[in-house]
Amino acid sequence: MEQLDKLEAHFKRLSHFQHLAAICGWDQATMMPSGGSQARADAMAELALYTHQQLTTHELHDWFSALDEQQDRLNDAQRASFREMKRQWQHASVLPDTLVKAKSLAGAKCEHAWRQQRQNNDWDGFAKNLKEVVALAREEAHIRADQKNCSPYDALLDLYEPDMTADRIDEVFGELKTWLPDTIQAVVDKQSQQTTRLPDGPFAEAQQKALGEKMMALLGFDFEHGRLDVSTHPFCGGVPTDVRITTRYDEQDFTSALMGVIHETGHARYEQGLPKHLAGLPVGKARSMGVHESQSLFCEMQLARSEAFATLICQHAKQAFNRQDDPAFHVDNFHRVLTRVSPGYIRVDADEVTYPAHIMLRYDIERDLISGKMDVDHIPDRWDHAMQQYLGLSTAGNYKNGCMQDIHWTDGSFGYFPTYTLGALYAAQLMQTMRQQMDVDGIIASGNVSPIFDWLSQHIWQRASTTSTDNLLKDATGETLNPTHFRKYIQGRYL
Amino acid sequence: MEQLDKLEAHFKRLSHFQHLAAICGWDQATMMPSGGSQARADAMAELALYTHQQLTTHELHDWFSALDEQQDRLNDAQRASFREMKRQWQHASVLPDTLVKAKSLAGAKCEHAWRQQRQNNDWDGFAKNLKEVVALAREEAHIRADQKNCSPYDALLDLYEPDMTADRIDEVFGELKTWLPDTIQAVVDKQSQQTTRLPDGPFAEAQQKALGEKMMALLGFDFEHGRLDVSTHPFCGGVPTDVRITTRYDEQDFTSALMGVIHETGHARYEQGLPKHLAGLPVGKARSMGVHESQSLFCEMQLARSEAFATLICQHAKQAFNRQDDPAFHVDNFHRVLTRVSPGYIRVDADEVTYPAHIMLRYDIERDLISGKMDVDHIPDRWDHAMQQYLGLSTAGNYKNGCMQDIHWTDGSFGYFPTYTLGALYAAQLMQTMRQQMDVDGIIASGNVSPIFDWLSQHIWQRASTTSTDNLLKDATGETLNPTHFRKYIQGRYL
Repeated sequence: MEQLDKLEAHFKRLSHFQHLAAICGWDQATMMPSGGSQARADAMAELALYTHQQLTTHELHDWFSALDEQQDRLNDAQRASFREMKRQWQHASVLPDTLVKAKSLAGAKCEHAWRQQRQNNDWDGFAKNLKEVVALAREEAHIRADQKNCSPYDALLDLYEPDMTADRIDEVFGELKTWLPDTIQAVVDKQSQQTTRLPDGPFAEAQQKALGEKMMALLGFDFEHGRLDVSTHPFCGGVPTDVRITTRYDEQDFTSALMGVIHETGHARYEQGLPKHLAGLPVGKARSMGVHESQSLFCEMQLARSEAFATLICQHAKQAFNRQDDPAFHVDNFHRVLTRVSPGYIRVDADEVTYPAHIMLRYDIERDLISGKMDVDHIPDRWDHAMQQYLGLSTAGNYKNGCMQDIHWTDGSFGYFPTYTLGALYAAQLMQTMRQQMDVDGIIASGNVSPIFDWLSQHIWQRASTTSTDNLLKDATGETLNPTHFRKYIQGRYL
Repeated sequence: MEQLDKLEAHFKRLSHFQHLAAICGWDQATMMPSGGSQARADAMAELALYTHQQLTTHELHDWFSALDEQQDRLNDAQRASFREMKRQWQHASVLPDTLVKAKSLAGAKCEHAWRQQRQNNDWDGFAKNLKEVVALAREEAHIRADQKNCSPYDALLDLYEPDMTADRIDEVFGELKTWLPDTIQAVVDKQSQQTTRLPDGPFAEAQQKALGEKMMALLGFDFEHGRLDVSTHPFCGGVPTDVRITTRYDEQDFTSALMGVIHETGHARYEQGLPKHLAGLPVGKARSMGVHESQSLFCEMQLARSEAFATLICQHAKQAFNRQDDPAFHVDNFHRVLTRVSPGYIRVDADEVTYPAHIMLRYDIERDLISGKMDVDHIPDRWDHAMQQYLGLSTAGNYKNGCMQDIHWTDGSFGYFPTYTLGALYAAQLMQTMRQQMDVDGIIASGNVSPIFDWLSQHIWQRASTTSTDNLLKDATGETLNPTHFRKYIQGRYL
């Protein structure tokens, strides 16, 4: 398969440039002094242009065409590699350069202005820019939809969650909507009967960092192939051989940084655990945004906020901050701290029970924005209506804590939001199966959690993008996505 | 000048990739966990290959040829830009790919083995690899010499110190040799009559870093465009808009890290002070390795080890480490600490008086190695002989602290060593002129040293590579390189 070899060599070569972009991107967010930003942005843009050119060079078209006709001569592994390379190539090459440029300009303009407009609660100013972004996203979605022969919104979904469709999400989120609002209310009522004592700061940053690194080690983070730093917005970056995770410290509340570190450690272990023999190939990358989020939420929610694991964290935290006699560090109280549920305006601050509400409302809006069923002007009303319905909160006139709170739409990343909640559902389903196969709480209590991660490695990480998300889930849990596991999990833990 | 525009656009584009290489190179030395090294090396090699291709692409040949014929239509600034682009292009394109590859392989092999061989004092093993490296360096030198119509060693010198020749260095170093050995002896004799008290550790790393940053600020380092970190071997890296300097801390001796920080700050200010309007062009880069070293040595030696500046450092250090009553921090003693002279085996540990001896012996050897007058087998004897002659120390049989101590020759960087001492000579000459034009010690005592750097900015930094080193020196000091200033400076400070 000469063409397959050529394609794989080409994509591996590309991955070296993506490596440099990942490290320089991490540097930008963690190390770079402010005065370096313009020259860095120019350098990164030049690199992005070059990698885009390399991904759309005419030779690729010839190699893909030739291989298309010989697919029956490929074995399964080769076919998967071919499929994932082709997916990347199609995503990159289908848009005309003029649209790519227009999108980039409109997105940059909208995002830049948004930073100030959000502070000023200036919906009218923001809406003007957003309309431009939405118009271009619709154009992009239509072009992608023609290529994939699907609906426009599904074509955008495919960028983040391959093979997922709005029909399937409607079904899954429809199930969620039948019980989530009532459950939120019931959990809030229940928790209002309990007394919870929040740990009292200050907690020194150095001690928080040491505690975070201790928990990372416990969760199997490989410090020979990664590190922990600080950035304004926590993320997991770098490359599989060198995974860079970040957090930010609040001296009054150490749980915020700590649970963030544990969340990013979930992402990091997936990256560190990808198969070495597929390094540099699209088929060797993480399966999807949703599957990636399932690993971080597995770590943070399924694992770390469980009673068994909260006990472990509590012991380590008590020592780290020398709070042996502090009643806030009593294990029962500490678990209540980690599982507080509180409906709020802001998605990124939400607990795991209310989080899906934030996602569903965004999904409903963006799906209809892209299909053309609704326009930008109607976003605030619809947002307010859904927030009242799901969380009992009104955002009327409060744009900055409502529909202007997220960065995603500013640069046209429609189709991304649902992956957060898909990840939560995947995670619940994986844990449900795992609990059938091993004594998860006993393993946690033993302090050596490697069997848990060995299971994830075997069923998720090592498979990378060699198969579909449906197959991954079916092979790991016996069924494709089934949202009832999430309901049982939430109601089991919180009610 | 259509071709000039095309050339400048091409080199500016290249500079974006060099930006990424600089940041990832810095990351490699300061941040990268060890397990990330192989993938990083692969990514950096891919980038180096790409930039080399871009620097040798056939279009450039056409543009340079066309412009060669129209040089009289260029103004001075355009001619300088053209000249520096052409220099880079010729340096990059003259070697056949096979030689570039052979050099890279032999260099990597020799350097890699050297790390162990040096520890084992294994000269025979090292010599075997070094012979290969020297053979390829001779081949390289001959090809470059044919292109430039000069001697082989001069062709290598040109890579680091444009327009410098062995004849000129022989002359300059010849002058040094007439007085340096006797002066070293006289200084050692004089200092042996004095009592010097070394500051007693430990000095906490965090306090050392804070002190270093204070001195950087005093020296005008722009923290909006740079930062200080830790690496095994101190260096100045990054890009002019974001200069990354490093040091390493010894808890027993804070002066080592501190003077290193001040040295790198000299490099950094040159980079930060390069003209913005020439950013990304070869003509906008630092003039040469020697001129670069002149700026670091100006900072560290001419400025920071002067009596006036040592007084400033002493005050800050006393505060930083809370040593108000420590007699080692008495200003006279402190200045003696900063100006101790002690002949030793190791170049990187040498003071400014003995340093040129280390360089002259290396220069004599590498010049004759490249010309073919001597072979690798004779290095140890010649090294021992010169060490005895200059510093009264024998390295017979002591290869690891003799001719195996440096990394430079392992990968074939012949022609680099003399630039260290040329830098010291340039620095002395610049200071001599500056002292005629302003009250340098008074300015230092005032605590606001910006007039000193304004002078360097005007005469060195802002001129970048717009003219030759000879012209730079002539315009700044009224004469080209004159080694007697260094003699007067050394004998004035130390005798």
